[in-house]
Amino acid sequence: MHLSYSAIIEILGTIAFAISGAFSAMQKRLDLFGVLVIAFITAIGGGTLRDVLIGNTPVTWMRDVTTPSVILAATIITILFKRYVKNLKVTLFLFDALGLGLFTVIGIQKGLAAGLNQGVCIALGTITGCFGGVLRDILLNLKPVLFHKEIYATACIAGGICYIIGLSLLQQQYAETLSVIVICAVRILAVKYNWKLPVV
Amino acid sequence: MHLSYSAIIEILGTIAFAISGAFSAMQKRLDLFGVLVIAFITAIGGGTLRDVLIGNTPVTWMRDVTTPSVILAATIITILFKRYVKNLKVTLFLFDALGLGLFTVIGIQKGLAAGLNQGVCIALGTITGCFGGVLRDILLNLKPVLFHKEIYATACIAGGICYIIGLSLLQQQYAETLSVIVICAVRILAVKYNWKLPVV
Amino acid sequence: MHLSYSAIIEILGTIAFAISGAFSAMQKRLDLFGVLVIAFITAIGGGTLRDVLIGNTPVTWMRDVTTPSVILAATIITILFKRYVKNLKVTLFLFDALGLGLFTVIGIQKGLAAGLNQGVCIALGTITGCFGGVLRDILLNLKPVLFHKEIYATACIAGGICYIIGLSLLQQQYAETLSVIVICAVRILAVKYNWKLPVV
Repeated sequence: MHLSYSAIIEILGTIAFAISGAFSAMQKRLDLFGVLVIAFITAIGGGTLRDVLIGNTPVTWMRDVTTPSVILAATIITILFKRYVKNLKVTLFLFDALGLGLFTVIGIQKGLAAGLNQGVCIALGTITGCFGGVLRDILLNLKPVLFHKEIYATACIAGGICYIIGLSLLQQQYAETLSVIVICAVRILAVKYNWKLPVV
Repeated sequence: MHLSYSAIIEILGTIAFAISGAFSAMQKRLDLFGVLVIAFITAIGGGTLRDVLIGNTPVTWMRDVTTPSVILAATIITILFKRYVKNLKVTLFLFDALGLGLFTVIGIQKGLAAGLNQGVCIALGTITGCFGGVLRDILLNLKPVLFHKEIYATACIAGGICYIIGLSLLQQQYAETLSVIVICAVRILAVKYNWKLPVV
Repeated sequence: MHLSYSAIIEILGTIAFAISGAFSAMQKRLDLFGVLVIAFITAIGGGTLRDVLIGNTPVTWMRDVTTPSVILAATIITILFKRYVKNLKVTLFLFDALGLGLFTVIGIQKGLAAGLNQGVCIALGTITGCFGGVLRDILLNLKPVLFHKEIYATACIAGGICYIIGLSLLQQQYAETLSVIVICAVRILAVKYNWKLPVV
């Protein structure tokens, strides 16, 4: 199997989201199966909602077992090495930001391929990036991260706008890279400097 | 763009639902983006679930940017004029009832167009009318309005039955109007006189 | 209407799930309509998500009114005879286990018919069996049963693996029966002996 650069990053993003889901579930003292389910939903939630909304069914993870296999492996490793992985918080956060960026770009691309309006595509990319985390929080009975933390979805929107503008000026792979960098940078800076949107 | 009477009312309903979502989110002290997301979900939730259940994808709001534009504008205006809009509670409630009625009829029509059973169509109309509010409440961690307030979904079911019966006796636009009036009237009377279904 | 053995058991499973949903809703003091909605969602939630994920739309319960009719009847009877039905707890639990088993097998079969990977089909069967209960718990603001009780979804996975292996060794109806028995047996023994998966 030849893996493109983009596919490799998507796998890294999937791993990061799976690990983040597994951690949240372990903190809530779920059993083994619960941890696996939450890891799975966190990693595939966004892409699944995207596919359902645009009618791209059976949804992607059902047609390509790479994603389920990666999630299963990532979750088992997280459970086995939980002491060690805990010390990788910064690494995990960076993976999560990278995953957020990549998933957003993939969502936008699928929207454009379906002939949707550019603003709608940015919304679709944001859904792809964020919805897994929202589902995780609803299932664990937490207030969805989307609605109480430092800038999160806004990073996806900013990166999405850069991607759409970038596409009209640059080759696709440069627009992709630019967009992922913008999303990661906004997200990382938002956490570092505690950027928040105003409460109205 | 020529707007039919029905399209105008649908836009008014969308505005009412968006404003109602924005208000609930502001009361929960969400940030700017959170308010926008909740407004959006409240306004498009019902139609989106309906489209997904009957396989009408990409879902409607992705193919016609009128709805997202209207929601965006309504939310921004709500945020800017929040003091003023608060004093419009009765007007908002009437818009909300009107939106509930119109969305229910639209849902039933899409079900009939898909060749579904009439009882199923009434369920589909009720889902279209009510689900946005249910999603809003789940995301804001409130007990869903559907399950604790005065008569709500029951108004949709009553209006839906009137629509199905009306179709066999009247021209379509009269059946539509009758059904919307019934839903609005039941809803308004239920709130005015605190009608509740029995708890079992 | 000629009903196959499988269709009869599916109806029994639907009844069991509807009754279980109606009971949970009555314990939460919902009104008449709320009880009906929760009964409905508990009974059709799993199959609906399955159909949406594989693109089998309009979803099954919209095309065949047997299921809605059965749920309506089961809920009304539950409400009317609530004192009596309460004394049938063991019977209900057995129906629920039977429903879980049958719904899981039906989910796997629909996945195989759609040409999906066997592991994905087991996941799809588990979703079909369990998701109605998860939705019920989210709507009633309970911690999802999936994540805090004795073995539940794990029974579906065990039975699903038996079904896939059984298909390569036995005739389809024997593999079906074996799988349903395994799921019921694991579920019943798990409750009887308080089997739990380890918390990690």
